[in-house]
Amino acid sequence: MIDRAAKLDAEDPLAERRDLFAIADDVAYLDGNSLGPLPKATRARLGEVVDKEWGEDLIASWNTADWIHLPQRIGAKIAPLIGARPYEVIAADSVSVNIFKLVSAALAMRPGRKVVLSEPGNFPTDLYMIQGLESQDLAEQRLAERGEIEAALDEDVAVLLLTHVHYKTGEMFDMAALTKAAHDAGALVLWDLSHSTGAVPVDLNGAGADFAVGCGYKYLNGGPGAPAFAYVAERHHEALRQPLSGWMGHAQPFAFTDDYAPAPGVDRLLCGTAPILSMSAMEEGVDLMAAIGIAPLVEKSRSLSEFTRAAMERHVPELECVSPENPARRGSQLSWRHEHAYELCQALIARKITGDFRAPDVLRVGFAPAYVRYADCARLVSELRDILDTGEWQKPEYAERGAVT
Amino acid sequence: MIDRAAKLDAEDPLAERRDLFAIADDVAYLDGNSLGPLPKATRARLGEVVDKEWGEDLIASWNTADWIHLPQRIGAKIAPLIGARPYEVIAADSVSVNIFKLVSAALAMRPGRKVVLSEPGNFPTDLYMIQGLESQDLAEQRLAERGEIEAALDEDVAVLLLTHVHYKTGEMFDMAALTKAAHDAGALVLWDLSHSTGAVPVDLNGAGADFAVGCGYKYLNGGPGAPAFAYVAERHHEALRQPLSGWMGHAQPFAFTDDYAPAPGVDRLLCGTAPILSMSAMEEGVDLMAAIGIAPLVEKSRSLSEFTRAAMERHVPELECVSPENPARRGSQLSWRHEHAYELCQALIARKITGDFRAPDVLRVGFAPAYVRYADCARLVSELRDILDTGEWQKPEYAERGAVT
Repeated sequence: MIDRAAKLDAEDPLAERRDLFAIADDVAYLDGNSLGPLPKATRARLGEVVDKEWGEDLIASWNTADWIHLPQRIGAKIAPLIGARPYEVIAADSVSVNIFKLVSAALAMRPGRKVVLSEPGNFPTDLYMIQGLESQDLAEQRLAERGEIEAALDEDVAVLLLTHVHYKTGEMFDMAALTKAAHDAGALVLWDLSHSTGAVPVDLNGAGADFAVGCGYKYLNGGPGAPAFAYVAERHHEALRQPLSGWMGHAQPFAFTDDYAPAPGVDRLLCGTAPILSMSAMEEGVDLMAAIGIAPLVEKSRSLSEFTRAAMERHVPELECVSPENPARRGSQLSWRHEHAYELCQALIARKITGDFRAPDVLRVGFAPAYVRYADCARLVSELRDILDTGEWQKPEYAERGAVT
Repeated sequence: MIDRAAKLDAEDPLAERRDLFAIADDVAYLDGNSLGPLPKATRARLGEVVDKEWGEDLIASWNTADWIHLPQRIGAKIAPLIGARPYEVIAADSVSVNIFKLVSAALAMRPGRKVVLSEPGNFPTDLYMIQGLESQDLAEQRLAERGEIEAALDEDVAVLLLTHVHYKTGEMFDMAALTKAAHDAGALVLWDLSHSTGAVPVDLNGAGADFAVGCGYKYLNGGPGAPAFAYVAERHHEALRQPLSGWMGHAQPFAFTDDYAPAPGVDRLLCGTAPILSMSAMEEGVDLMAAIGIAPLVEKSRSLSEFTRAAMERHVPELECVSPENPARRGSQLSWRHEHAYELCQALIARKITGDFRAPDVLRVGFAPAYVRYADCARLVSELRDILDTGEWQKPEYAERGAVT
């Protein structure tokens, strides 16, 4: 396994990209699906933004450094990674806030329909945002198990909200098929691409998707809590109305008029002033991924996860894999169930192998193709074997939990 | 005027605080009410957050650097500047998004009432957010001129939304009196403190205010587009429900349950993941202001603006002051109307005196007491006199407008 990993690393066309990140050589970072690591270029960029743009040029930077168009610029760079046109994507707020905007917009486009359909066990914030609209009596949440979604699409469903790659199991929905099913039932579709963007093939235009949101701080390496992005298919631009109609989404934000008039296109998804420091960092992360392009990222992602799945099956068979066996049906991650998944995860972290735990019993690792090495995957497997064999996971300190687990 | 300014600067107990900011000595920065300058400590802090917390410690920093509690920590530090208890304030999202949350919450607390009362000419985003709720048929906007607000408070008004200090004229509302009037009419009050916090006296608890929001990037020096903050009076904590019910506002965000349950207190105002880089910068800005304390800030603010108002009246009488003459009735800013306010503003900037223009004809300057010198104010007046006398403002380049004006 170790030899095979070394051979694959030697042949990896993306191998040198790891140098673009500030990751110590002895760290196997398999948690880029939770928080992408620091691109070295981001350091220099933030220095420039802080010292020059904010520190010296101050408010002039809204024009001279074009802060005002950061949301559009970042969106346009994300677009090719998700099969969208540049003017269909914009960076703004958080995934949660963007879900609220787009579910609201979809509901307004389907008068007489109130149901937002999703699946139980979807990433919690997606469901919580539906419930927020439910508390306003604007929506009605309906949940259907993965296999029963098509059957649950009826004439009451205004919008289908699904996370393309499941955060816990890595299961990937067939975007084109479900989009078609929703459209056949007269519903719109909002795809949450948080666990997809930059690691798996996504073709929003090709699938005929209506709306999408995604995360800036996972595979896009935008920094902790980086802004999110939102996609609206061009055919909906004209009709789109969303209730978080803040001044930055106004047709003329600096005319300071009393009446809201939406800006053209996706610009109307903007609400308040963008957090420029976090946005600037995000642009560097996105630039790095855009420069590689999605095809080699997808290819390496699948190869890494297949290598790991097979090695785990052979060497650590007592962990039950809960991710689909077919790499075309899963995202860039693998998850295994184990009663002591939390402790195993902590023991791995102590050995500088970073995966994460998802309640109640899942050990999850992500394969961010821009910097993960096959050697990292081999190490995960061999160290996990050792942690189980030696019983090291039983150390009391591995059971201690922080505020964030 | 110049001599008097020098004397006042020599006696200024806050004079040395200017050294805490990265502002060039030859710049008169009178636009801290638009974007506060860079505190030197923020540079070091961001270096630490980027290199160590994100770069080395990665996801562990949610616990080890306590990223997860940045919103509460910053809120608690802002509290004494606005007469609130530490657990009544939280940093989150933007002013616009927080207005949406709190107007929604207020509407839910006043069933049967739908009117959100404000004034025409309020900061646009405040009105636009009401209009967003109106588009969902959840609210009805009513606007009343400043002198007619009390008369417009009837049994249909759910919430009165006012900006404490007017962004354009600097006029300051009597918070206690209007809060009482609203309560007498059975309405709740949401104060927008964007142009108040850190420069004028605010006593939310003393005034019996229900809700407030405020800006992180003006007098708090939190950085371009810094997160905003929100206040909820303790007596409303139990009943508070807001529709942007994202996972970070959940009672147990990492339990990953399907059903939303609000976190205790103001924590339930959180929605998505906070932008940690921008939040960290904000904390430094807030720390700097909290260390000075509100009383000396208010005292110097009034003294600076009085000095400037009197000097302008004497030396540049052709500019019509649109701010109240009584310093107790205005915020930490002064505005003058002039047909060529835009060009005058650009000519001043060319002489390193930064104020700003607000459409259609207002020249506005802010007196951020932590770093503005009396000498800066004297320079504004004498250079403006010169720009008018020489006709320099007529240079064609001063008429050119950027995306942000």
